[in-house]
Amino acid sequence: MSQHEKTISRLREMDTEVTRLGHIASLLEWDQETCLPERAVEGRAAQIALLTGIRYEKLADKEWGELFDRLGCDDAGDSAQLDEEHRSLVRETCRRWIKTTKVSRRLMEETARTVSLSQAAWAVARAEDDFPAFLPHLERVLALRKEYAQAVSAGPDDYDTLLDEYEPGASGRSIAAVFDDLARGLRTILDKITAAPPPEVTFLNKNYPRAAQNQFGERIQRCIGFDGKRGRIDLSAHPFTTTLGPHDIRLTTRYGENNVLSGIFSNMHEAGHGLYEQGVAESLYDSILGDGASLGIHESQSRFWENTVGRSRAFWERWLEDFRTLFPENLSGIGLDQFHRAVNMVSPSLIRVEADEVTYAFHVIIRFRLERAMVLGDLAVADLSDAWREAYEDLLSIRPPSDAEGCMQDIHWSGGLFGYFPTYALGNLYAAQFTQAMERDLGPLDVLIRSDETARVLEWLRRSIHVHGKSLKPDEICRRVTGGPLKVEPFLKYVRGKYGELYRF
Amino acid sequence: MSQHEKTISRLREMDTEVTRLGHIASLLEWDQETCLPERAVEGRAAQIALLTGIRYEKLADKEWGELFDRLGCDDAGDSAQLDEEHRSLVRETCRRWIKTTKVSRRLMEETARTVSLSQAAWAVARAEDDFPAFLPHLERVLALRKEYAQAVSAGPDDYDTLLDEYEPGASGRSIAAVFDDLARGLRTILDKITAAPPPEVTFLNKNYPRAAQNQFGERIQRCIGFDGKRGRIDLSAHPFTTTLGPHDIRLTTRYGENNVLSGIFSNMHEAGHGLYEQGVAESLYDSILGDGASLGIHESQSRFWENTVGRSRAFWERWLEDFRTLFPENLSGIGLDQFHRAVNMVSPSLIRVEADEVTYAFHVIIRFRLERAMVLGDLAVADLSDAWREAYEDLLSIRPPSDAEGCMQDIHWSGGLFGYFPTYALGNLYAAQFTQAMERDLGPLDVLIRSDETARVLEWLRRSIHVHGKSLKPDEICRRVTGGPLKVEPFLKYVRGKYGELYRF
Repeated sequence: MSQHEKTISRLREMDTEVTRLGHIASLLEWDQETCLPERAVEGRAAQIALLTGIRYEKLADKEWGELFDRLGCDDAGDSAQLDEEHRSLVRETCRRWIKTTKVSRRLMEETARTVSLSQAAWAVARAEDDFPAFLPHLERVLALRKEYAQAVSAGPDDYDTLLDEYEPGASGRSIAAVFDDLARGLRTILDKITAAPPPEVTFLNKNYPRAAQNQFGERIQRCIGFDGKRGRIDLSAHPFTTTLGPHDIRLTTRYGENNVLSGIFSNMHEAGHGLYEQGVAESLYDSILGDGASLGIHESQSRFWENTVGRSRAFWERWLEDFRTLFPENLSGIGLDQFHRAVNMVSPSLIRVEADEVTYAFHVIIRFRLERAMVLGDLAVADLSDAWREAYEDLLSIRPPSDAEGCMQDIHWSGGLFGYFPTYALGNLYAAQFTQAMERDLGPLDVLIRSDETARVLEWLRRSIHVHGKSLKPDEICRRVTGGPLKVEPFLKYVRGKYGELYRF
Repeated sequence: MSQHEKTISRLREMDTEVTRLGHIASLLEWDQETCLPERAVEGRAAQIALLTGIRYEKLADKEWGELFDRLGCDDAGDSAQLDEEHRSLVRETCRRWIKTTKVSRRLMEETARTVSLSQAAWAVARAEDDFPAFLPHLERVLALRKEYAQAVSAGPDDYDTLLDEYEPGASGRSIAAVFDDLARGLRTILDKITAAPPPEVTFLNKNYPRAAQNQFGERIQRCIGFDGKRGRIDLSAHPFTTTLGPHDIRLTTRYGENNVLSGIFSNMHEAGHGLYEQGVAESLYDSILGDGASLGIHESQSRFWENTVGRSRAFWERWLEDFRTLFPENLSGIGLDQFHRAVNMVSPSLIRVEADEVTYAFHVIIRFRLERAMVLGDLAVADLSDAWREAYEDLLSIRPPSDAEGCMQDIHWSGGLFGYFPTYALGNLYAAQFTQAMERDLGPLDVLIRSDETARVLEWLRRSIHVHGKSLKPDEICRRVTGGPLKVEPFLKYVRGKYGELYRF
């Protein structure tokens, strides 16, 4: 083994160790959301903080610096000595190491502990619609994230530094511009839709027993390719997907007895995330690259399966009769067209995760604007509740009657995830642009769905996107797959086409 | 804070860290037994090995030695400078540190990884009754445990060194003598029982749906005092109890549809362990002392609730009618006396965890003799299967038709737990001796059970045993609670009395 190979090999070994510690931390968090006894919350916070501290020591180890020096790396982790195979690994570990050395162990541990407690407090405060009880927690979490951003200082401002954790290469300013275009385009479409008569949907809110919903949901997840030997599906208050190892991808879901769509689409959404994680190349397992390229790209996969596939007419051509056998009374007399229209009903609403494809982006845009203002100091956390209500009134012309259905509906901020929200809307844009490229290669998606050939769709996604993990940047993936940078137009075209037909405008 | 106080405070801090890392490792193991996807087994083994290595580094830290020096400790961790409050903490951490420094990180990690894979291989081999497939794993695990014993060398021989992990102060020689007495005493009783007509028990093997069994099982666990806000109950192939934090005690159980007693008594057994863990004093939380005094004392608690309480006539006087409402057809015409006799049917059988109170010890004695012979080199692992069959024929006059029902029935050896088995029989002896002491304080146990006053029983156990955690040695607890050392006679007296009445001899 040459000196150069030894250096790379040691780098991989160190990276595997911190990746595995990350997976262990994810188990602690997964267990907290799915299993943890009520009184164990503080103990769990201490365990997570301890593990975070240990992982931090390993991430900040001086040996990384020696390895990067030996490899001749510059400040961005680039080096002329590296071949294609190792370039991304070195670049990503180097970027992480430089960030880490700027942050203290004290801050990492305190953030981990504070976040763990804050999430528990959020769950209680949301259940009791008590924003004042949650406020001090949120203030503490935000202060710690700002302290982190100040220390790392990776972007032009604190918000960009935080954003970089989730969407490398993006900036608050460019996203704001994209979102302005998006809001304008969607507004025009939404106005036409709200002028048209709404579909009949009351049958969706009849009683759908959870066990049967779960049966259907798991069947769909398996059918689109989620491998149950390499993952599992559980219940939690807020659905999420987490990776506890290369063969251990866990989805969670929830079912509302009187809201059958929520469970179905949350299942497909999380399965989309899970498929991405299960599709990463084996050579990237247990490394910093064995992950999605960014949250925006990740979300493109979940929303592709949830919306582009799951809310298509072709999908229900294939599945409606199976669905009907589980709930024959509720669906008696409901034909495919009516079902398809109901599944795609557009209506401004309060809850992001239940929103339709057209209004969804407004929820994200509101959060993006508010969190950016909080991070940049233009909005006090104490004023969040009022600002939220005003923003909903302004953009969607509705007013949340409570904070539980308002600014406390999402877990993200309680977990310190400022800069995360915009990736949800970016995901929709990526998904539309990827779908255009896919159809150029495979022909119309509808034909594949109708003939139960989603395995070919998955194979295309695997080889175009999944297999690369984090070894390509989001922008690189977008250019390779679609021939250009991210654009708003493919998504607007998709929405205009689909809803123009459904609402006849 | 004085220098002495600072030293103690630092010791506690270091101990808390390794205790919490132990709890995290327990979560990884609990999850493996209850949740882990099929293909994630190897990845989990790597995670456990990594965490074991990290914990090892902390356990072997030179700073411990400096702290013990500063406190003036001798090789047994004793020091004249210590007051009562800190003596046990220093003694136990010092004993652990001395042991740890004798063992290499390589050995600890390799053992952790090997054990994790061996347990997975055991589960498959047991299901397929394929001892040859399991054999190389078992040989590797035993070799690693012997290497550990050689390195630590804490007792007169390797077996004693391993035994010390589970039952501090015990020796293979003294246990062999106790077990000889026990076997002789039980043999006399068993001969009388087998000469008497057996009770009618076929109603116990009718179909008992799992959901209803679970409902009854959880109700009993709550009723005897297991706190669901500080723990949970799940399913696993082999029932166990584990502590993931001071407020996170997890029980697992299993239900056989045609063997209703198995689930009920396994529930009470594990709840007994759980009650012990939930009863430890708050001042001992997250420390080396926040645990049971030994496995023998632990088992005294589980078997007290399972047998002394659960198989008593008084218990079923209280519960039979509740039980009957869940399974009215199966129990139609079954009266209290008949039920009580059936629940206490004695019959030599193949499976330890299903054995009655009288034959149970023979299962343990067989395992003790075989494992001691394997560790001391008097029995080759390859000969285990034959030796097992001979031992069962010799002591219980039955011959296992398969290794799945023979030497592969228990998980312990696959997990490297040599020296663990004898604690099961010691538990029965302790339980009988503790019960005598309890009855001197509270009056007849039957009266308390019948009148639903098990809260008083639990309170007595808490203050006499649980609250002390590991701060007293098993022998100290026994002398404090009962006025003397462990004896065989109280257990034999209990068995003779109870079964003499049931079988009329």
